[in-house]
Amino acid sequence: MSERHRDFETLARRLPASAAASTPEALHDLLAGIAAAPPPVDDAWLSLVGQTLKEDVVTALRDMRHALAPDPPAMGSPIADRLGPFRQALVPLQLDGFLVPRSDEHQGEYVAAHSERLAWLTGFTGSAGIAVVLTDRAALFVDGRYTIQARTQVDPAAFEIHHLLDDPPHAWLRARIGTGTRIGFDSRLHTPRGLDKLRKVCEERGAELVPVTDNPIDAVWATQPPPPLGPAVPHPIEFAGTSVAAKRTLIADQLGREGDAAAVLTAPDSIAWLLNIRGADVPHTPLPLSFATIDDRGDVNLFLDPRKLTPEAHTHLGNDVVVQPTEAFGPHLDKLGHGGRVVRVDPASASVWVFDRLHRAGATIRRDADPCALPKACKNAEELEGARAAHRRDAVAICRFLRWLSVKGPSGELTETGVVDRLLGFRSELPLFRDVSFDTIAGTGPNAAICHYRVTAESSRRVEPGALLLVDSGAQFLDGTTDITRTVAIGAPTPAMRRRFTLVLKGHIALATARFPEGTTGAQLDPFARQFLWRAGLDYDHGTGHGVGSYLSVHEGPQRLSKMPNGVALQPGMIVSNEPGYYEDNAYGIRIENLIAVRRATDVPDAPRPVLEFETLTLAPIDRSLVDP
Amino acid sequence: MSERHRDFETLARRLPASAAASTPEALHDLLAGIAAAPPPVDDAWLSLVGQTLKEDVVTALRDMRHALAPDPPAMGSPIADRLGPFRQALVPLQLDGFLVPRSDEHQGEYVAAHSERLAWLTGFTGSAGIAVVLTDRAALFVDGRYTIQARTQVDPAAFEIHHLLDDPPHAWLRARIGTGTRIGFDSRLHTPRGLDKLRKVCEERGAELVPVTDNPIDAVWATQPPPPLGPAVPHPIEFAGTSVAAKRTLIADQLGREGDAAAVLTAPDSIAWLLNIRGADVPHTPLPLSFATIDDRGDVNLFLDPRKLTPEAHTHLGNDVVVQPTEAFGPHLDKLGHGGRVVRVDPASASVWVFDRLHRAGATIRRDADPCALPKACKNAEELEGARAAHRRDAVAICRFLRWLSVKGPSGELTETGVVDRLLGFRSELPLFRDVSFDTIAGTGPNAAICHYRVTAESSRRVEPGALLLVDSGAQFLDGTTDITRTVAIGAPTPAMRRRFTLVLKGHIALATARFPEGTTGAQLDPFARQFLWRAGLDYDHGTGHGVGSYLSVHEGPQRLSKMPNGVALQPGMIVSNEPGYYEDNAYGIRIENLIAVRRATDVPDAPRPVLEFETLTLAPIDRSLVDP
Repeated sequence: MSERHRDFETLARRLPASAAASTPEALHDLLAGIAAAPPPVDDAWLSLVGQTLKEDVVTALRDMRHALAPDPPAMGSPIADRLGPFRQALVPLQLDGFLVPRSDEHQGEYVAAHSERLAWLTGFTGSAGIAVVLTDRAALFVDGRYTIQARTQVDPAAFEIHHLLDDPPHAWLRARIGTGTRIGFDSRLHTPRGLDKLRKVCEERGAELVPVTDNPIDAVWATQPPPPLGPAVPHPIEFAGTSVAAKRTLIADQLGREGDAAAVLTAPDSIAWLLNIRGADVPHTPLPLSFATIDDRGDVNLFLDPRKLTPEAHTHLGNDVVVQPTEAFGPHLDKLGHGGRVVRVDPASASVWVFDRLHRAGATIRRDADPCALPKACKNAEELEGARAAHRRDAVAICRFLRWLSVKGPSGELTETGVVDRLLGFRSELPLFRDVSFDTIAGTGPNAAICHYRVTAESSRRVEPGALLLVDSGAQFLDGTTDITRTVAIGAPTPAMRRRFTLVLKGHIALATARFPEGTTGAQLDPFARQFLWRAGLDYDHGTGHGVGSYLSVHEGPQRLSKMPNGVALQPGMIVSNEPGYYEDNAYGIRIENLIAVRRATDVPDAPRPVLEFETLTLAPIDRSLVDP
Repeated sequence: MSERHRDFETLARRLPASAAASTPEALHDLLAGIAAAPPPVDDAWLSLVGQTLKEDVVTALRDMRHALAPDPPAMGSPIADRLGPFRQALVPLQLDGFLVPRSDEHQGEYVAAHSERLAWLTGFTGSAGIAVVLTDRAALFVDGRYTIQARTQVDPAAFEIHHLLDDPPHAWLRARIGTGTRIGFDSRLHTPRGLDKLRKVCEERGAELVPVTDNPIDAVWATQPPPPLGPAVPHPIEFAGTSVAAKRTLIADQLGREGDAAAVLTAPDSIAWLLNIRGADVPHTPLPLSFATIDDRGDVNLFLDPRKLTPEAHTHLGNDVVVQPTEAFGPHLDKLGHGGRVVRVDPASASVWVFDRLHRAGATIRRDADPCALPKACKNAEELEGARAAHRRDAVAICRFLRWLSVKGPSGELTETGVVDRLLGFRSELPLFRDVSFDTIAGTGPNAAICHYRVTAESSRRVEPGALLLVDSGAQFLDGTTDITRTVAIGAPTPAMRRRFTLVLKGHIALATARFPEGTTGAQLDPFARQFLWRAGLDYDHGTGHGVGSYLSVHEGPQRLSKMPNGVALQPGMIVSNEPGYYEDNAYGIRIENLIAVRRATDVPDAPRPVLEFETLTLAPIDRSLVDP
C-alpha cells in the first residue's frame, strides 16, 4: 500500500496545476471511482483528472485505472466465509434478519460494482433476486430465468434457493418470524411498493421491518469498490433535439397544472433526459447515477458526486442547475417538504428512504408517475432522425454478420461465444458506436429456448447444421439505441421449425402494419402479434414490446406491449420493440425483433379521427429459408 | 273510490277460502302491486291471488288488474308543477338540495314503475341520468345517447341539461355549494363508488352529503305505484342445469376459502341464478327484485315481498331458504355484522345504505365482486343446450322476418315501427317465447347512426329504397336469452356502404374465429373486431361484446369485450355478444351481432396449454348484397 502511495505521489506531482486531484489521496480516490465504473468506451474519463495531460501521464493514468479495477464480487475471500461476519454485523443492530436485494438506489436494470451486494454475499450474479438472511438460515429468491444459474453459483449449505413468484420471500418468512422478530432492510434499496407483502406478513406475525441507512453488507465487504465515477458528459443538442431550458419549462408547467410544488427524480435516465447529459456509471446504459428535484418554476437541483462531471458538463449545466454532492439530497428533501408543500414522487421507483424523509419533513406526498417518463418516451424529430441513422449504420454490421454466418455457419465450427465476438467486431467499426446496449444473447438449439439466455464459457454450444441460431443484440450509438433479434437456420430447418417461424413472422408483420386510433394502448395491440400462434394453440411467455430510449436505456417505460394491463396510450414518437417469439423446450427458440416508432398515418384522409401506425426502424433481412409460404 | 271498494268487496267474497288475499283491502293492495309490474306474459300472477279460481272470477281479476295499471310517470299533474312541492319537502329535512338518480335499490338496467322517480320529476325517460335539485336551480345530467331526447322531454325553464361525462354533477355543484350546504341523497339508490366525486367536492367546499332513507320524492308523488308484485316462479332444473343445493355449496365453499363469514347479494339476477327462480318485476328481464345473504355454511336468507312468490316457488324454496319481508333485511344485516364478522359486499352494486348499516353493526366489510357473478356467467351444459335451442327457434323468426323484409322492403312502404311490430309477431309464435329481451332497435338512414336509438311514434322513419335498415333485437325464451343485430340493404347499397359493411364483417369474423389461451380477457380480444376498421381510420364508440344471461339479463358481467381494461378472463361457458359496427353521422349505421359461447378447442392436440375458442350460437344469414368480395 505504501508503494502504491508513492506511485500516487509521483503521479500527482506530474499533473498540471489545474488538475482536479492535487493530493495523492485525492488522486487515488478519483481513480478508484473511475475504475469502479464499467470499462471506459473513450477517454472522457481522463478529463476528470485534468486537461492538457502529457502523453506519459496519460499512460501512467491508464495503467493505474487498470490496476485499480475491482475484481468481480465473487472473487476474494471464499463466499462461504462471508455470511458469518454479515450475521455478526446484525447483532449490534439488534436485528434477527436482513433483506439483501439486487437493486440499488435507482431501481434500474444495471447496478454499479459498488452495489453488487447480492452477488458478493451469495455468488449469484443474475439481474434480479433477493436474499433473506436470518440468524440460523438464509434463502435466495430468483425468478424462472435464473433458477438453474442460481443452483450453479450458490452454496446450497448457506442458501436455500426458492422461486421468487411461486414461493416468495413473504411466504417463506411467515413461518419463520414471530412476535418481536426484527427484520432489517436498507431503506434506500427498496420501494414502498416492493415491501408491501413483507410488511403485511410482519404485521400479521407481530414482527417488525426495521429500516436501516448504513447497510451492514458495506461494513463487512472489505473490498467493496467505491461508487462509480463514470464521466458525465453533455448530450449534444443535435442528438437531443430539445434544449434543457425547454424541457425544464415543459415539466414545470406540468407540475403547475397538477398542483405539485416539486417532483423528486430518482431515475437516472429521467435526469439524463431532462438535463441532456449522459454518463458511464453502469454497463451498457449511458446513465449518470444521480438524484434530482425540479420545482414548478423549473429550478433543478442535481445530486451526484461532482467529480464525475467533465469540464464540458460543468459548462453545459451552467447556472441553471444547482449541482450538489449526493449527501445534500436528504437535507434538500427536508427543505422541499417544509410547510406541507405538495411533492410528487413515483412510487414505482423512489425508495422508502425518500418517502420517509419527505414524510418527516412534513411534505404532502403525491404519488404519481415520474413527470419525465412520458415526454422522454415521445421522441422528438431529431431523436427520431438519430434513431433512423443509427439503425441504418447498425444494419451494415448486421448484414455483414448475417453474410459471415451464412458462409461460416454450415461448417459447424462456430460457437455461441464466437458469434457474439464476431458481431461485436462488426459493430465496433461503425461511426458513433459506443457500446452494446445489453449483453448479446446468442443461443443455438436448446439454449435458445431459454428466454434470457446469456452465453458463458461453460454454456457455449457449437452452432450445428440443422439447428436454429437466435441472436438478440443491440448497440448504443451517440444518436440512438438499437435492439434487434434475428433467428437463422444453420443448414436446412425442419418443417416444424418453418411452420412456427412463419407463425411468429405473421404476428410480427401484423403488429408492424397495424393502424389504430389515438388512445390505443400497447396492451390492446399485443394480441395482434400472438393471434397466429394462438390459433395453433401456441404462445410465448414474455411481452411483445418494450420502450427504447434515445442513446439511453434499451428498456424504458411507460408504454409497453404486453398482456399486462397498462393504461399508457401509444403516442407519436414512441419507440418500441416488436418481438414475438416461440420457444420449444429443450429444442429451439425463435424470436423476430425490430424496433418500430409510432407515427401519425397520413394516407387515410377521410378518417374522422387521427390514425396512428408504426414506422419500422430496423433494417435487416429475415431468413427466408424459415418462411413457409 | 268507494265504488271501487265495493268492487273489491264483491270480488274478495267470490275468491275461494284458500285465497291469499281475504279482505278487500288486501286484495286491492295485491292487485295494485301486480298491476305495478310490467304487463304479464302469462297467467302466473293469478296464482298469487289464489288457486282453482272460477272463470268469471279470473275475468274480473283481469279487468281489475288492467284498471289498476299505473299511468306512465309523466302523465298526471303537469310536470312543471312537481318541482315546487318537491323543494318544499326538502325544507323540513333542512336540505339545500337533493340527488335524484334514475337507479333503484339494485343498480340494474331496468327499474319498476315504482322507482321511476327521475321520469316523474323531470319527464325524462332514458335509462341513465341523474338530476340535481337545488333551492333556486336544478340540472339534469344525461350521457351522449340521451341529450337530444332530454331536450325534447324536459322543461328547460325547470332543468338545465348537461352532459353526464363532459360536464358532470360534481363539477356543476362545485360552483353552487359552500360551507354548510346540505345535499341530501337516498342512500338506498347510490353506491359508495358512484358518490366518490360528489363527496370529494362537498368536502372541498365544506358542504355535506346527507344520507336520507325516506325519499322526499315518494312524499310528494301522490300517484306513485306500489313496488311491483310480478310473480316469482321456479326456474326448472332442466333449464337451470344445477340445483340450488349445489350452487349454495359452491358459493359457501368460495366464501370459506376467502375467509368471508357471509356475502350480501343485492343484484336480483344473482339471486335468481342462485335460487333457480325467475320473476316479473321489471321490463324484459325475468328478475324478482329482492335482496339476499348467503353465509359460509350455505344458509340463504331471501328478502322480498312474500306475496309475489307463487305456491310453486314457495314449495321450490322449501326449508333451505328463509324467506323474509324486505323490511327484515336491515335487522338481518345488523345480525350478520355482529362481533366484527367478515361480510363480503360488492362495491359496484351495493348501496351506501348497505355499507352504512353493516358498518354500524360492527361488520368487517370486505369489498369484492358479487360471488355469484362469475359462476352465473359460466353456463353449464344444460344452459348451453338451452341457449342453442333458443337460438334455433329464434332463427326461424329472424329468417321469416328477413324474407318478409326482402319482399316488402323495396316498396318503400315499411316504417320502423312497422318493422318492430312484425318481428315481434314472428317471435310471438315461437314455443317457450316469453318476451323481447330489450326494446327492439329498428333504425334506418340517419336514425341507425344513433347507437342506442329506440323508435317512437314521432321518430319513426319510412324504410326507403337505397337505405340501410339496422335491426337489433332479442328474445327471452324459457331456455335462453337471444340478442341479434342484422343490417340489411333496402334495394341497392352504395359502394361506400358495402366497403364499410365488409370491414365490420371482417372484424366480426376475426373475433368469431379467434383462438386464444386460457387467461385471455375480453379487452385483449376486442381489437380483433376493430382491426380492419382501424386500418381504414375508422372505429366504433361502443364495446364489442357484453355477457348474456340464461333466461336472465341480456347484459351481464363480469366479462366483457371492450377497450376498457377488464381483468376477468374468458372461461368456457361464458356467452358474449360479438357486435362490431360502424356509424356514419347523419347517414347510416351498420352493426353485425351474433352471440358466441366460449368453449375449449379440441382440434389442437399438440397445444402445450388449453386453447379456447368461440361457438357461434346465432343462426341467421348476413345480407350478402352488402359484402364486397
